[in-house]
Amino acid sequence: MAASTVKALFFDTFGTVVDWRSTVIREGETLGARKKWNIDWPAFADEWRFDGYKAGYAKVSKGELPWMTVDALHRMQLDRMLESRGLASALSEEEKDSFNKVWHRLLPWADSIPGLLRLRRKYIIAPFSNGNVALLTNMAKHVGLPWDCILSTELTRIYKPDPRTYRMAVELLGLPPEQVMMVAAHIFDLRGAQAAGLRTAFVSRPAEFGGGREADKDTGLGFDLSVRDFMELADTMG
Amino acid sequence: MAASTVKALFFDTFGTVVDWRSTVIREGETLGARKKWNIDWPAFADEWRFDGYKAGYAKVSKGELPWMTVDALHRMQLDRMLESRGLASALSEEEKDSFNKVWHRLLPWADSIPGLLRLRRKYIIAPFSNGNVALLTNMAKHVGLPWDCILSTELTRIYKPDPRTYRMAVELLGLPPEQVMMVAAHIFDLRGAQAAGLRTAFVSRPAEFGGGREADKDTGLGFDLSVRDFMELADTMG
Repeated sequence: MAASTVKALFFDTFGTVVDWRSTVIREGETLGARKKWNIDWPAFADEWRFDGYKAGYAKVSKGELPWMTVDALHRMQLDRMLESRGLASALSEEEKDSFNKVWHRLLPWADSIPGLLRLRRKYIIAPFSNGNVALLTNMAKHVGLPWDCILSTELTRIYKPDPRTYRMAVELLGLPPEQVMMVAAHIFDLRGAQAAGLRTAFVSRPAEFGGGREADKDTGLGFDLSVRDFMELADTMG
Repeated sequence: MAASTVKALFFDTFGTVVDWRSTVIREGETLGARKKWNIDWPAFADEWRFDGYKAGYAKVSKGELPWMTVDALHRMQLDRMLESRGLASALSEEEKDSFNKVWHRLLPWADSIPGLLRLRRKYIIAPFSNGNVALLTNMAKHVGLPWDCILSTELTRIYKPDPRTYRMAVELLGLPPEQVMMVAAHIFDLRGAQAAGLRTAFVSRPAEFGGGREADKDTGLGFDLSVRDFMELADTMG
């Protein structure tokens, strides 16, 4: 792959740039201590992620739910999980809204910001995430992610990994797909980007799921690049 | 107006943040010197702006032209103007594309970046311009405008000052309109924002049109704020 033809880098966000799991667990523990709840926060974080976000956007993609943002999917699941634990009335509306927005406050992996600052000198860098524009904008501001612009599947109202959504995002930057590289820790995302004609870089994030589920590994899957972290990506991309 | 309820500031771009006229004139003069053309560049810049952009988006809004980006409107007008001066074949396709993108390289007014850096500490700041996403992203990167995200009427496919476009942009940030303030040097833009329920701040840019056309003045028109420049805006907004 000729790195010199790439003009822009798109980054998956949850898991690739930020460590959603440990941030949700930590904020959960703080809330739980204040409320004197006895909750398994790692299990809570995983359930929120997989039954809320993952299952939720799959239903939107299949037409089983109307279009809704990730904020709305997260909130639907939070309400369900509080209800099932008998805690629906233990939080005020304001507290529920605030806890739901923990997804706007996720902390980056240690190499994310140093790597992005280097890559930014040469490339347009943008998140391209299923997270909605408000979520991604607030997250960037909260921790200082140095994006050039915020791109979200909310702008196309089609969730990743549908190839149409990558094409529409690339068009917003006025670039042909082969001048854009999708960076992600998830194979399904990179497959979608490949189908849309983008370049692809796999970045390994072995700690994404804690000790539980196994993170994706690149076992020679035909991506343009495969790197350990964003610093190696910056080394490779000049 | 309670400044404390405002969470985000939207900025008109051409004329409000950047000095389109002198940048286009300067790049035109450089190109003209190389090509040995005898062209009145201030008149060229004004014609490009008013017959290309202004007349162009008005036609899109009235349905006389299909949806097209500001890049496309600029290019249509550039081709027309080169043709009428007998210069259509004096530039290669690459040179035409590059000159058309002078609108991606506009330089800011002296107070723009210092003011935005101060405002950014307290507010989400974003351009909200008729300029397309690629144009606004490239412009920000070229001169270092410190936006939190890039908002453009391209995302709504309705040009300002239609009130619907402001409402859709505000929704992307998950905010009610009264928590967003539109900052512009143009009365028509602030009137559109007011109609959509946004707060408004007029900033005077007396030099926008050079010696020719007169810039808008706030003669007590009922905007929430009226300021001399972005430094005064930052002073006022805390």
